[in-house]
Amino acid sequence: MEGIMMKTIYVNATFFTMDKENHIFENGMMVVEDQLISYIGERSDELMVGADQVVDLAGKWVMPGLVNTHSHILMTLLRGIGDDMLLKPWLETKIWPIESQYTTEIASVSAQLGILEMVKSGTTTFSDMFNPNGIDSNVVMETIGETGIRGAFSYSIFSFGTEEQQKANIKGAEEFSKKYKMFADGRLTTMVAPHSPYACTPEALMECVRIAKENDLMMHIHVSETDYEIQDILTRYGNRPVEHLRKLGVFDQPTVMAHGVVLNDEERAILKQYDVRVAHNPISNLKLGSGVADVVSLLDAGIIVGIATDSTASNNNLDMFEEVRTAALLQKGMYKDATKLPAQTALALATRVGAEAIGMGHTGSLEANKKADFITIYPYDKEHLQPVSAAYSHLLYAARGSDVCDVFIDGKTIVKDRKCLTIDEEKVIAEVNRLQKSLV
Amino acid sequence: MEGIMMKTIYVNATFFTMDKENHIFENGMMVVEDQLISYIGERSDELMVGADQVVDLAGKWVMPGLVNTHSHILMTLLRGIGDDMLLKPWLETKIWPIESQYTTEIASVSAQLGILEMVKSGTTTFSDMFNPNGIDSNVVMETIGETGIRGAFSYSIFSFGTEEQQKANIKGAEEFSKKYKMFADGRLTTMVAPHSPYACTPEALMECVRIAKENDLMMHIHVSETDYEIQDILTRYGNRPVEHLRKLGVFDQPTVMAHGVVLNDEERAILKQYDVRVAHNPISNLKLGSGVADVVSLLDAGIIVGIATDSTASNNNLDMFEEVRTAALLQKGMYKDATKLPAQTALALATRVGAEAIGMGHTGSLEANKKADFITIYPYDKEHLQPVSAAYSHLLYAARGSDVCDVFIDGKTIVKDRKCLTIDEEKVIAEVNRLQKSLV
Repeated sequence: MEGIMMKTIYVNATFFTMDKENHIFENGMMVVEDQLISYIGERSDELMVGADQVVDLAGKWVMPGLVNTHSHILMTLLRGIGDDMLLKPWLETKIWPIESQYTTEIASVSAQLGILEMVKSGTTTFSDMFNPNGIDSNVVMETIGETGIRGAFSYSIFSFGTEEQQKANIKGAEEFSKKYKMFADGRLTTMVAPHSPYACTPEALMECVRIAKENDLMMHIHVSETDYEIQDILTRYGNRPVEHLRKLGVFDQPTVMAHGVVLNDEERAILKQYDVRVAHNPISNLKLGSGVADVVSLLDAGIIVGIATDSTASNNNLDMFEEVRTAALLQKGMYKDATKLPAQTALALATRVGAEAIGMGHTGSLEANKKADFITIYPYDKEHLQPVSAAYSHLLYAARGSDVCDVFIDGKTIVKDRKCLTIDEEKVIAEVNRLQKSLV
Repeated sequence: MEGIMMKTIYVNATFFTMDKENHIFENGMMVVEDQLISYIGERSDELMVGADQVVDLAGKWVMPGLVNTHSHILMTLLRGIGDDMLLKPWLETKIWPIESQYTTEIASVSAQLGILEMVKSGTTTFSDMFNPNGIDSNVVMETIGETGIRGAFSYSIFSFGTEEQQKANIKGAEEFSKKYKMFADGRLTTMVAPHSPYACTPEALMECVRIAKENDLMMHIHVSETDYEIQDILTRYGNRPVEHLRKLGVFDQPTVMAHGVVLNDEERAILKQYDVRVAHNPISNLKLGSGVADVVSLLDAGIIVGIATDSTASNNNLDMFEEVRTAALLQKGMYKDATKLPAQTALALATRVGAEAIGMGHTGSLEANKKADFITIYPYDKEHLQPVSAAYSHLLYAARGSDVCDVFIDGKTIVKDRKCLTIDEEKVIAEVNRLQKSLV
């Protein structure tokens, strides 16, 4: 394959670029050379010369694939296990007892199901944190590699168990993070993921900083999710979580912090100063009763914010269209101001800005020299997208994951006419149902 | 047809009854005789005797059709017209200028599109309020009758224009309300719909009460939607909206009040005392920056609450699965308590309780002697419903309107395999796009 450049030209579509100016090209053209977009704009006959393939998209909408900045795909099998419950009994009577029975097979099939759901609803890039207990993470990473998705997969570090177990956990994370830093044609990478300030000792957190520094990796951590966490960390360490982590040097490395529901102005100033990015999980935060993150204030403070689903155990789906819609609606409702987080801004968080948040600025918008990660929607047979107009608001306020028709990552077709080409859908669904019965 | 009873038996399905005990019958059976359910429960060979037809649902889920308690289907063509805007410029520069150009044709096609979207996403019963200006409402009502949907269609009363225009508006509403009180085999009815306390004079409101009393009709009105409304009514009449309406006798008739975002304890006590029902529109209330209705307090006060989408101009879709999910999530988030509005309770508001709210207790659950209004979902090929389990939480937290496979109203098939049998989908979509171009 080396040395042979494949030039594919996509025509007869409306391109929602999600670039900084939110350009839309009606009846536009996109040129993809191998894995990269080389041109996006008005149709140009000149550029058609030398094309290996011209794809007529016949009226479809094209937009960048969505970026899910915080997920737990190994928990996908736990969808519907324990809803409407408080966090403590939920974890103690539902999630943990079941997770303790996890096997590599369950983990791999959960990952496939999660990715299947992601790609079929338009997500092309994700950043995930997984619990490595009881599983061979090499097998899981190979499985993820085969799906064709782009993203970062982070091996969680917890300060649980004996000292030996904790050491083994950190060693495992370090090895995994290094080994898969550049994997699957560079589509997959890793981050260093101390679970949270409450589940990690200061020592463990400092070890994570060392690993991240030595290997030039980002940090991925749950922070400031609930009022309880703030009080807990304040009681244990004398500081709220943000200051606690800052003091330990966590923010010296580029960090993605999941949640950020409970933050004050001083903390937002720290996050801005250290360029900490926030993965906002609006549905999970509501469902677990954590509250609503103040995204408007984060953006006003100049902080980079991405959108995320969290796991299916607290969502319960991975539809990023629904997630970003909920994000926009919540800010309007909380501020009692319909102009907050307008369509283009919200969609940017779910695409270009979200990609930047997780250190993947090479994807997230349709621009020359970006990765050819894009999705198509055919609006003309969908009643909820009528009347059809080239409006970002249709994508934000009316569309849903099931509207996605085709999905391309690195220029390769991953989903075609709602059929995933890289995952055996029937087999995964059968396996998921068989394995769940074995667990419960 | 008279005298010939048609007995159809549905087998091999999981029935989510949404009855008061939330019974679920896995591999259950439902018998429908003409328009009514005559049996629902465990499979019984005895009851198979004399069946005209046995329908094998092959693993599908069956639940009652959803009930949308407040919509404006004549505005469906306005989807995406003016998003992220404050109410005043939105109305003055977008909605009103376009509505002033409405014709009967535009109204009828908008109605068809709205109903198409409703039934295809599982709504079988709706309660709508329409602006009659410039259109022949008889034609629109005939069009709605042909779609097979169940519901109430309310002719709005506004105190706008000259005295003569206001009189003509009330006269038109009175005639319409009487004429269509019992229409389309009893599937369609009417309510008396003064638009709101701010758009109607006390005299007009009292005229509405007279019409409702004389004709034994319910009232349908927007109340307590925004902080601005509360101040406005307080300034103009010396009372907040609820007390203002109570004094005028509005609540002496059974009333459905849309919104109820801004209410205090005293007002909830009045609503309970007069058995006023609330149509809760969570997405519209967020999108327009109105806020979040306190549904938990309404339910605690014993008030009947239904779920609703409002129009596509402030939503922008009519997917009741998404709407009721948002309703449940918001209460958990606002109360910071994951146990608030659990799955069964939320789904009941979108089905049985919602039907009761709009005076249609003969539908909304799968029970003997209720109307055979039901929908099916085939979960086994849907990644976001895996692992499959007979759990209300899957329906609330993971499902979406596009999962709906078949829809039955009054025992008749309205949607089969996602194809609507009563509306020409392609024609409606073509017309909608042609007519919108003529408007903008």
